[in-house]
Amino acid sequence: MANPSSNLSRIGLAGLAVMGQNLALNIAEKGFPISVYNRTTSKVDETVERAKQEGNLPLFGFHDPESFVKSIQKPCVIIMLVKAGAPVDQTIKTLSIFMEKGDCIIDGGNEWYENTERREKAMAELGLLYLGMGVSGGEEGARHGPSLMPGGSFEAYKHIEDILLKVAAQVPDSGPCVTYIGLGGSGNFVKMVHNGIEYGDMQLISEAYDVLKSVGKLSNEELKHVFSEWNKGELLSFLIEITADIFGIKDDKGDGYLVDKVLDKTGMKGTGKWTVQQAAELSIAAPTIASSLDGRFLSGLKEERVEAAKVFKSGGFGDILSQPNVDKAKLIDDVRQALYASKICSYAQGMNLIRAKSNEKGWDMKLGELARIWKGGCIIRAIFLDRIKKAYDRNAGLANLLMDPEFATEIIERQSAWRRVVCLAINAGISTPGMSASLGYFDTYRRERLPANLVQAQRDYFGAHTYERTDMPGSFHTEWFKLAKQSRI
Amino acid sequence: MANPSSNLSRIGLAGLAVMGQNLALNIAEKGFPISVYNRTTSKVDETVERAKQEGNLPLFGFHDPESFVKSIQKPCVIIMLVKAGAPVDQTIKTLSIFMEKGDCIIDGGNEWYENTERREKAMAELGLLYLGMGVSGGEEGARHGPSLMPGGSFEAYKHIEDILLKVAAQVPDSGPCVTYIGLGGSGNFVKMVHNGIEYGDMQLISEAYDVLKSVGKLSNEELKHVFSEWNKGELLSFLIEITADIFGIKDDKGDGYLVDKVLDKTGMKGTGKWTVQQAAELSIAAPTIASSLDGRFLSGLKEERVEAAKVFKSGGFGDILSQPNVDKAKLIDDVRQALYASKICSYAQGMNLIRAKSNEKGWDMKLGELARIWKGGCIIRAIFLDRIKKAYDRNAGLANLLMDPEFATEIIERQSAWRRVVCLAINAGISTPGMSASLGYFDTYRRERLPANLVQAQRDYFGAHTYERTDMPGSFHTEWFKLAKQSRI
Repeated sequence: MANPSSNLSRIGLAGLAVMGQNLALNIAEKGFPISVYNRTTSKVDETVERAKQEGNLPLFGFHDPESFVKSIQKPCVIIMLVKAGAPVDQTIKTLSIFMEKGDCIIDGGNEWYENTERREKAMAELGLLYLGMGVSGGEEGARHGPSLMPGGSFEAYKHIEDILLKVAAQVPDSGPCVTYIGLGGSGNFVKMVHNGIEYGDMQLISEAYDVLKSVGKLSNEELKHVFSEWNKGELLSFLIEITADIFGIKDDKGDGYLVDKVLDKTGMKGTGKWTVQQAAELSIAAPTIASSLDGRFLSGLKEERVEAAKVFKSGGFGDILSQPNVDKAKLIDDVRQALYASKICSYAQGMNLIRAKSNEKGWDMKLGELARIWKGGCIIRAIFLDRIKKAYDRNAGLANLLMDPEFATEIIERQSAWRRVVCLAINAGISTPGMSASLGYFDTYRRERLPANLVQAQRDYFGAHTYERTDMPGSFHTEWFKLAKQSRI
Repeated sequence: MANPSSNLSRIGLAGLAVMGQNLALNIAEKGFPISVYNRTTSKVDETVERAKQEGNLPLFGFHDPESFVKSIQKPCVIIMLVKAGAPVDQTIKTLSIFMEKGDCIIDGGNEWYENTERREKAMAELGLLYLGMGVSGGEEGARHGPSLMPGGSFEAYKHIEDILLKVAAQVPDSGPCVTYIGLGGSGNFVKMVHNGIEYGDMQLISEAYDVLKSVGKLSNEELKHVFSEWNKGELLSFLIEITADIFGIKDDKGDGYLVDKVLDKTGMKGTGKWTVQQAAELSIAAPTIASSLDGRFLSGLKEERVEAAKVFKSGGFGDILSQPNVDKAKLIDDVRQALYASKICSYAQGMNLIRAKSNEKGWDMKLGELARIWKGGCIIRAIFLDRIKKAYDRNAGLANLLMDPEFATEIIERQSAWRRVVCLAINAGISTPGMSASLGYFDTYRRERLPANLVQAQRDYFGAHTYERTDMPGSFHTEWFKLAKQSRI
C-alpha cells in the first residue's frame, strides 16, 4: 500500500469518515500525492479502493501512524478530519510523536476556536505548527471543491497554500474559495459564524415555505416551481436550489411527496449554539440567527407541541387561525421579498459578530474576503455574497450591511412586502420568528430614538445605575422614588 | 466601635457599598447584632453612623479583618457583598485566614454560579461552609426586605435561617421571600434567571410605552395615568408602579418631563447575557429574554442609529411609517393585553431554563417555591407570580406555563389584541421585538406541525444527517441529489 513510486507523499490526511475521505480524494485528484490513515483500518482500505475506482488517484493508505507520518515529505503536513473535542487531542497525540520540528498539523473539523488556540500553543512548544481550518460544503464540497477557512500559523498556511488554492471551489471572476483568515482560532471562528448564518438561512427558507404552504395553500409541485424560479434571481443559492429539489422528490415508501413524511424535528451539532453565545458575549444583536436556534429547540419538543395544539384547538385555535383570501402570485412575490430582506439582516448580524471578534482578538479580518470565499463550495454559497463583497469593497469600515447604499435601497424597496408577510403570518397564527426578528432588527437599528430611555430610567430608579441625558454631557442620578412620593402628597 | 455589650455579634457582613450597607442595617433592625467590615474604612464609619441615626441599631464596625471576624459568635457566619469575580476571591482570602472549621461564608453578589461551586469546594477543603445567595430588591429591598435565594451548603443555610426569614420581604398569606434553593450554585443560577426575566419585563414595558407614545400619541401625563391604572389589575407589579412614577417626574434641569431627557442607551451588568448563553447551552428557547438583551445592545449603538435614521429617512422612512387613526382607549386596552400575554411567555422561558438546569445538576428545584419568594422584595415582584405559583401547585410537572389551564385561557382571551398590537407596530415601523418574540414563541409552541421537516430534509440533503418519518419509526437517509438529478432528466 505504500507509495509505489517510492517517493514521499506531499501531504497526509488522518480521519476517513465522509468528509475526510472526500477531501483526500479531492487533494489526490488535484495531483498532490497523499497518504491517508484512519484508526479503524477498513476505512483506509475503502478510501484506497475509491481512489483506484475514481481514476487511479495518487492516494496511499497506511494502517499504522508511524509509517503514515514517515511516508510524507518534509515539512510533514497532516490534515485531521475527526470529531471535535477529545478525538482531536487523541489524534494529535498519536501523530505528533512521529513528527519533527517544523512539521504541521491542520484540524479541518468544526472545532471550538479556543481549543485550537490551546493546541496551537501546545504544538508550538514541541516546535510544531498548527492550523484550525474550517471546511464547508458537506460531502459534495469536500470531494469537488469546498470553501476553506484556514487560521493559525501563517508559516503553516504557506506550506500548503498551493494545495488549498487548487482543492478549494473555484468561482469564475472571483478565484479559489480560500484565504488565510488570520491568527489563532480565527478560521474556526469564521466557520462557526458561517454555520450560524446557515442556520438563519434555513430557518428563513422554512418560514417562506410555511407561509406559502399554510396560508397560500401551494402544493409541493407549486413550491418546487416557486423555488426554482427564485433560484434564477436575487435568491440564487445552493440552499434555494436544494429546496426546489426537495419538493420534487416522491416518497419511495408510500404515496405522495417525501418532504411531507419527514418528521418536523431538526437536529443540530453545536456551531449555531456557539454563534448565539458568542453574539451575547460580544454584545452583538443576532436575533435572526438566535431565532433559528430556538426554532430547532422548539422543533425538538414534538410531543409537547402535539399536546399544546390540542389545548389551544379546544380554545378555538385551529392550526391556521384565519384563512385570508390571498392572491397567490402576489403572495409569492411578497414572500420572496420578505425572505431577501430578512436575509440581509441575518448576514449583517453574522458579519458584525465576526468583526467584533476580530477587533477583540486583533485578527484584522477582511469581511469582503470572507464573503468572497463563501461564494462557492460552502452551504451558504449564493449570488447574494457577491453583493456583500462589493459592499465591503466600497467601504471596508461599513458599520452595518444595512447602511450600504445598495442594500439600503433594496430594503426600502422590499419593506412593504416584508411587513405584509409578517403581519399575514401573525394573523394566520403561524409564526415567522426569523422574519420577525430580522424586521425588528431593522426597525430598531434605523431608529434614532428608542424607548430605551425608559429602561435606563427604571434602572436608575431601583438600582441607582445613573443615566446620560440627551441635552448635556455627564452622568446623572435622580431620586425618583422620593420625587414620586412628594408628588403623590 | 466594638460591640459594647461585650457580647459577640450574631453575624458579620463585609462589603459596605449600597447593597451591603442596607442589608446590614436591615439585619440589625430585625434584632440580630451584626459586625460590619469594609476595606475602605470610611464606609464602615458611614454605616455605623447610619445605624445610630436609624434607631441605634445593634451594628458594630471594624477597621481590620481580624477583629471583625473575632467579634462574631461561633459558628461564625459572614455575608460578603462585593463585586463578583476577583474581589470575591480576595475577600474570601482576607477573611478565611481568621475563620475556623464549621464557620461559613455567604456570597450575596450576582456571581456566576460556577464560581460559587469552585469556591464551595475550596472552602470545604478548609472545613468552611459556603453559600451563594442571590439578593434582589435593589437598595430599598436590601434595607426593608429583599428576596433571598440562598444555595449551597444546607448546613450553612440552617445556621442563619432564622435571620433570613426575618430579613426577607414578608408577603401576607405567602410568608417570607426566602427558601433554601438547592445545592451548589443553584442560588446564583436562580438569581441570574430572575434578572433575565427582569430584563424581559423591562423590554416589554418599554415596547408598550413606545406603542402608546409613538402610535397612540399619549402624553407623559396620560402614560402615568395608564400605568397607574394597569397597576390596579393583572399587571400589578413593582416595575409597572415605578414606570407610572417615572412618567410623572418633571425635569429639574429644564422644561418638561425628565424621562424625555434621559438618553436612550441602556446599560447592563452581565446576568442577562449569562441567561441567554445558558438558555442556548441547555437547548431552551428564550427569545423574549434574548430580545431584551439585543434591545440593550442596539440601544448602545446610538451614533450608528442616528446615522441609519438619516439614511432611511431619505429613503422615505419617517420615524413612524404610518400614523393610523387609532381609538386611544381601545389601543390602551390592546397594549395591556399584549403586554400580559407576552409576559406569560417570558416567564415560561425563564422557568423552563431553571428546570433544565435543575435537571442537569440534580438540584431538585421547586418552581412554585421560586415564584413564591419572588412575590415580594425583588424587582420582578408582581401579583402575576401568585398565578405562576398556583399553576405549579396545580401541576408541579407542568411542561410549560402556557399549558396551565388558567394561563391558556388568559392567552386565548388576549391573543386577538396581542396580534393587533404587534401588527400595528410593524406597520407603523416601530419594533416590538419582545412582544413579537413572545408571540412567535407561543405560535411555535402550540403548533403540532412546524416547517422543521424542510430544515431536516435540507440537512439530510447536504450533510447526510438523516431524518425521522411521521409514519414509521427509524432513522432514514435519502440520496436527494441523485433522485433530483434523475427527475431532471
